[in-house]
Amino acid sequence: MPQNKQILLVSRPTDEALVSNFKLISSETPALQDGQVLVRHHFLSLDPYMRGRMNDAKSYAAPQALGQTMGGGTVGEVVESKNTQFAIGDKVVGMGGWQEYSVVDADQPGALRKVDTTHIPLSAYLGAVGMPGVTAWYGLVKIIEPKAGETMVVSAATGAVGSAFAALSKARGCRTVGIAGGPAKCKYALEELGFDVCIDYKVHSDATSLSKALKDACPNGIDGYFENVGGMVLDAVLTRMNAFGCIAVCGMIAGYNGAPMPLTYPALILMNRLKVQGFIVSEHMEIWPEALQELGKLVATGRLRARESIAQGIESAPEAFLGLLKGKNFGKQLVKLS
Amino acid sequence: MPQNKQILLVSRPTDEALVSNFKLISSETPALQDGQVLVRHHFLSLDPYMRGRMNDAKSYAAPQALGQTMGGGTVGEVVESKNTQFAIGDKVVGMGGWQEYSVVDADQPGALRKVDTTHIPLSAYLGAVGMPGVTAWYGLVKIIEPKAGETMVVSAATGAVGSAFAALSKARGCRTVGIAGGPAKCKYALEELGFDVCIDYKVHSDATSLSKALKDACPNGIDGYFENVGGMVLDAVLTRMNAFGCIAVCGMIAGYNGAPMPLTYPALILMNRLKVQGFIVSEHMEIWPEALQELGKLVATGRLRARESIAQGIESAPEAFLGLLKGKNFGKQLVKLS
Repeated sequence: MPQNKQILLVSRPTDEALVSNFKLISSETPALQDGQVLVRHHFLSLDPYMRGRMNDAKSYAAPQALGQTMGGGTVGEVVESKNTQFAIGDKVVGMGGWQEYSVVDADQPGALRKVDTTHIPLSAYLGAVGMPGVTAWYGLVKIIEPKAGETMVVSAATGAVGSAFAALSKARGCRTVGIAGGPAKCKYALEELGFDVCIDYKVHSDATSLSKALKDACPNGIDGYFENVGGMVLDAVLTRMNAFGCIAVCGMIAGYNGAPMPLTYPALILMNRLKVQGFIVSEHMEIWPEALQELGKLVATGRLRARESIAQGIESAPEAFLGLLKGKNFGKQLVKLS
Repeated sequence: MPQNKQILLVSRPTDEALVSNFKLISSETPALQDGQVLVRHHFLSLDPYMRGRMNDAKSYAAPQALGQTMGGGTVGEVVESKNTQFAIGDKVVGMGGWQEYSVVDADQPGALRKVDTTHIPLSAYLGAVGMPGVTAWYGLVKIIEPKAGETMVVSAATGAVGSAFAALSKARGCRTVGIAGGPAKCKYALEELGFDVCIDYKVHSDATSLSKALKDACPNGIDGYFENVGGMVLDAVLTRMNAFGCIAVCGMIAGYNGAPMPLTYPALILMNRLKVQGFIVSEHMEIWPEALQELGKLVATGRLRARESIAQGIESAPEAFLGLLKGKNFGKQLVKLS
């Protein structure tokens, strides 16, 4: 039985999450029961939603149990199988968690999915052709419902969701404007991700200043906004929304540490007759096949080339995760596990 | 030619609106052109949206021009006609403004509408069977889309919109909870308007306290909220919204004086996957006939008995309007003009 390094959640943050909230242990993988497979993880996905699960508060996701392995999306390879549907060597996507191996009841619907890596790299199934990509797809296609020629804006523009959003928005003929932190990310957004403009929010000290930059970047106003961050960025975008515009609220990473992060002028929702809608993509599984098909095609044809930040080894996961919450990653944050 | 007393907007408020922003004048009504009718107003409607029009800011409504008669809904009687569709004595609804008479180009679509006062009092066409009633109908039926057994909440519960909302919500089998200011309004909401519970927000000093009262009033959480006020009330309601709930944003009267009125915890929109949508009923004229039919039936059969606050004489309009903005009215605020 191989040794399996795992990372447990051992305490809950009081404000900022800390490395000390996590603990590394090692144990032997258990023997397989009928129907189970043993997956050796190649990559673990780190995602902002995990911060919410570290709290023991009423939220959309059940809290991560203390003393248990942190949950998370993984891609890997079947190394042992007692399930006729899965053979050794199969490449698979699942929710294996923060560990090197997982034992999966592979007959459970949705527990494990075989993927084709002929034209799409395995790691992309955790990003552009995975949950983040489908998240961008759902917010754009099902909530914002863009029309060609409209202006779309996304924050955290070079992240996994933002990258996919740009490709999907451009494919629909929309002017596509990103908001990201720092000149390197903005340059990359323009040169690699297809954004028409990318605004560096770090050069703006307040919402008024950022609002002016948005006015220049969006001469016809903003019709759709995909919200990943909240705070000052949301305040600024709200001032530039067109009548009947739509805001898809996917994340408010700026508020994940628990401090309230007020919206300064909610009356703009009324004045501009906006629709502001929160969503969680895992509650809309019915759209995944359609979304994954479009996203897979964009990746396979090179029209969506999302960048990855890769941390090495399961030991590095906590540090990499805390960096993600502070925007230190550049593109999809992964941990390489084998 | 009769003398016509009129109230003009002569200056814009810097924060609170003041009586000195208005000016009373008197002039002779002009002679009619072909197609025109002269309407003697019986009632003028005072509505919160008028405060927004007093500002010269980007908003949904064009600003009220300075030096012109304040706009507003009126009901009255045709007293002179050069239009074959309208006869002397016809009861009519229009946008006659803050004055005793108006000359109307009655061939313009929507300018003037004849109404039947057999079973519905003329003044109700400015309230329950007029714009406020249709506003409640649109927010409830088209935005919230309630199901029987769900819990609906409305702020400014005893106002013209809130009253209609209660009758419409109860007709759909929903638990219906009001929020109003003071024991008299809450008693009236329970005894006359059909609310299941009415919460007096004035006994709560902060959103946390109001949130606790909402928990008691809404044991199954809140599925739909019709927002008329903003501020602390919105903060409190947000904490009690059920997943996939909906907030129809009709007004944020607490913020009409221009000071920002932040929403403390917008991340709840995401956590509870809410839809928050602003609307203006005048942009949805296609639903008015259906809405007015239901509202007219509710009034004619006594299931919607909305209270009116009636100020006497056009001279009293500014004071009555400022009172409305402070919640001093009790029910639909009207000005009796003849």
